[in-house]
Amino acid sequence: MTPAPFAVADEELALLTDLYQLTMLQAYWAEGMEERATFSLFFRRLPPGRRFMLACGQQYAAELATRLRFREHHLKRLAGTGLFEEAFLAWLGAWRFRGDIWTLPEGTPVFANQPFMEVEAPIAEAQLLESLVMNLVQLETVLASKAVRVVLAARGRPVVDFGMRRMHGIDAAVRGVRAYRTAGLEGTSNVLGGLRHDLPLRGTMAHSYILAHDDEREAFHAFARRYPGTTLLVDTHDTLAGVRKVIDLMAEAPETGIGAIRLDSGDLGQLARESRALLDAAGHPEVKIVASSGLDEWQIAALLEEGAPIDVFGVGTEMGASSDAPVIDLSYKLVEYAGTPRLKHSPGKVNPPGRKQLFRRYDEVGRYAGDTLALRGEPGIPGEPLLRPLVRGGEVTREEMALAAGARERVQEALARLPAALRELDPGDAGYPVALSPGLDALVRTL
Amino acid sequence: MTPAPFAVADEELALLTDLYQLTMLQAYWAEGMEERATFSLFFRRLPPGRRFMLACGQQYAAELATRLRFREHHLKRLAGTGLFEEAFLAWLGAWRFRGDIWTLPEGTPVFANQPFMEVEAPIAEAQLLESLVMNLVQLETVLASKAVRVVLAARGRPVVDFGMRRMHGIDAAVRGVRAYRTAGLEGTSNVLGGLRHDLPLRGTMAHSYILAHDDEREAFHAFARRYPGTTLLVDTHDTLAGVRKVIDLMAEAPETGIGAIRLDSGDLGQLARESRALLDAAGHPEVKIVASSGLDEWQIAALLEEGAPIDVFGVGTEMGASSDAPVIDLSYKLVEYAGTPRLKHSPGKVNPPGRKQLFRRYDEVGRYAGDTLALRGEPGIPGEPLLRPLVRGGEVTREEMALAAGARERVQEALARLPAALRELDPGDAGYPVALSPGLDALVRTL
Repeated sequence: MTPAPFAVADEELALLTDLYQLTMLQAYWAEGMEERATFSLFFRRLPPGRRFMLACGQQYAAELATRLRFREHHLKRLAGTGLFEEAFLAWLGAWRFRGDIWTLPEGTPVFANQPFMEVEAPIAEAQLLESLVMNLVQLETVLASKAVRVVLAARGRPVVDFGMRRMHGIDAAVRGVRAYRTAGLEGTSNVLGGLRHDLPLRGTMAHSYILAHDDEREAFHAFARRYPGTTLLVDTHDTLAGVRKVIDLMAEAPETGIGAIRLDSGDLGQLARESRALLDAAGHPEVKIVASSGLDEWQIAALLEEGAPIDVFGVGTEMGASSDAPVIDLSYKLVEYAGTPRLKHSPGKVNPPGRKQLFRRYDEVGRYAGDTLALRGEPGIPGEPLLRPLVRGGEVTREEMALAAGARERVQEALARLPAALRELDPGDAGYPVALSPGLDALVRTL
Repeated sequence: MTPAPFAVADEELALLTDLYQLTMLQAYWAEGMEERATFSLFFRRLPPGRRFMLACGQQYAAELATRLRFREHHLKRLAGTGLFEEAFLAWLGAWRFRGDIWTLPEGTPVFANQPFMEVEAPIAEAQLLESLVMNLVQLETVLASKAVRVVLAARGRPVVDFGMRRMHGIDAAVRGVRAYRTAGLEGTSNVLGGLRHDLPLRGTMAHSYILAHDDEREAFHAFARRYPGTTLLVDTHDTLAGVRKVIDLMAEAPETGIGAIRLDSGDLGQLARESRALLDAAGHPEVKIVASSGLDEWQIAALLEEGAPIDVFGVGTEMGASSDAPVIDLSYKLVEYAGTPRLKHSPGKVNPPGRKQLFRRYDEVGRYAGDTLALRGEPGIPGEPLLRPLVRGGEVTREEMALAAGARERVQEALARLPAALRELDPGDAGYPVALSPGLDALVRTL
């Protein structure tokens, strides 16, 4: 018996959708509904405590959209549900995305009701992207938006991702590193994620390595001789005793050139101060202190506030699932069909109708001054138009992809240009001005 | 240029690990440390508000462990890091897991400090599994443990997963359905997940389908004629007006046999009552009411408490990332090496040492009465031994795999046998008695 696969292969991704997308597609097909539709991807509300999100994953999702295909064996499995006509399945076998996708460049700060992405295509093409695109964009946006808070809290000190084991499955762990790279992390412990998404690999040692040796000193010696400049984990038995063993080791074997010690339990601020004092007194100001152990942006801020001499933060659990805000209220809504703007009226929900463009204005020193959400092509709107046509006629536009590169650098620049209050962990009542253009405002009123 | 793959292929999974696992492996290899080690997988604390978790994913992870291999191209990529000797990489190319894995059967309720899994192998084999096993087991355990709360809250009414778009990436979405199946969900909207993990596919329609038509009535007619017995989404414009259109449709076209209406916004309890009254008055008690819209276990319980006539719950966002408890404090700790029990002493953390067995006792009517965590092979412990040897010498034991099947049925049985207080959404101070055996207690004291 051939074992069933564990991971999901690229060629299966067309099937990673909600059933209603396929039943709606069959209905559109049967009804002859082939007009162009525009769907807009946005979130209605920021998660509590957040004042911006980093839009991430939309380029990746757009590129994937151009590659989705239904294979013969997919169609057979769909036929087995009894819901689909043979002629429709044949049509689905020829389905491909031939439309346009406009996106914000990855790493752009976004606010409520701003489109990350607008998808324009015959309705059956644009509709089918909904579930997968939302899944893909949500993951990276959630993770990058959490990670950038951790980066801000660390005030320039390197932050390293240690979270692979606590992230939600294989894809989150690997694509998460892509989001972390965008957000400005310095490195990752995740081998496949780091290799694939070009973030430097970092690692120290585990308690198990110490415990497998008959004593800590022996473990330190063996590891340090093999990996000169390494980081030694000092808290397995008694942290300060561990630090003293590291100091002794450097005296006995200076060639090991210990790079850092890692603290992974206890009062990190106090232990960092005491460890720093021991190291400095022994003439080792060059040995850095790495701290880990359930850290999040608040704890990092508190540690730095109290003056803890920590040089590098290893962050896992809390960042890996964005524990305080693991989902965003993302929507992918029909905003135009057959040239007519569409609007859902249900209580408490308004979807800005029509094809749109997002304009961002800057003040005299280049800081964000406010945004205007406008109709696509509406003249006279001040500011920089942020949505760019990444996919045209089902093909990724090479020039646009080149323009969209550099998400990590874009985030660094954007952080400097965000109003200062929005960069605070707790921004209080600070908001960001987003206006509707005259054209969009008039359209909303008409509908 | 061949496009880079999106998803992670099975054959890459050996690389999905933390860097320190590989540097520790090289150190073990260089030091000639080849003795057998036992690692134990457990969590230290239940998430706030939870009184049990469903252990899930450990069979899947154990089976995957037996298939992990490093390919030539993996070794080349590792060589590129500059951290590894050629002779070690050759050894890694021959690495495979040849040890034993004991697991709780999937779907077993577990409590703090109880091993889901114990892995026994030469240390380099058992160590390498840590990161991937934790990632895999965490996902399914978190999702199944959340989903079972939703199932309990629905008091026998079917719960359907609508969460694919809000889950953390591709793997979470697909394996999540496996966890949902175990937890007792009735169906899923997720096509690939449902097909792969054998949970019935369910779907209704989206607002976009309604909005793409010139009016709601036309959309209802088209969809219902194509899918007799379908569920119609009635809240796009005005919910009760939508219900009246459904009633008119059934009068005009009785052959459509509408199965249900779906409410997706507004005051679901009130709208359900009003919709039920309209449907009943029109002679349609057979038309069911499906409710969705950001539901979690608390909202479902409140709706049923107020008597809302809802027949089926569609649940997505909150369940999809287990928003209130997206991670568990899972550990994979060395508990024995070379025949000697090992224990980490850091403040506030105790890892029960040694190879263990978990015994569960039942009262006269079969309810769980309490557990005893004991040393493996310790005689005279009352109760049923729950850890089973799923993998022996690197091979999955066929008989054990057969015994471990039926996780969904196991959960249903377990829910009936759990002390009643633990099944409450808010169990207050209710706990579950877990004792250490005399042998384990003595060992903890000695160390």
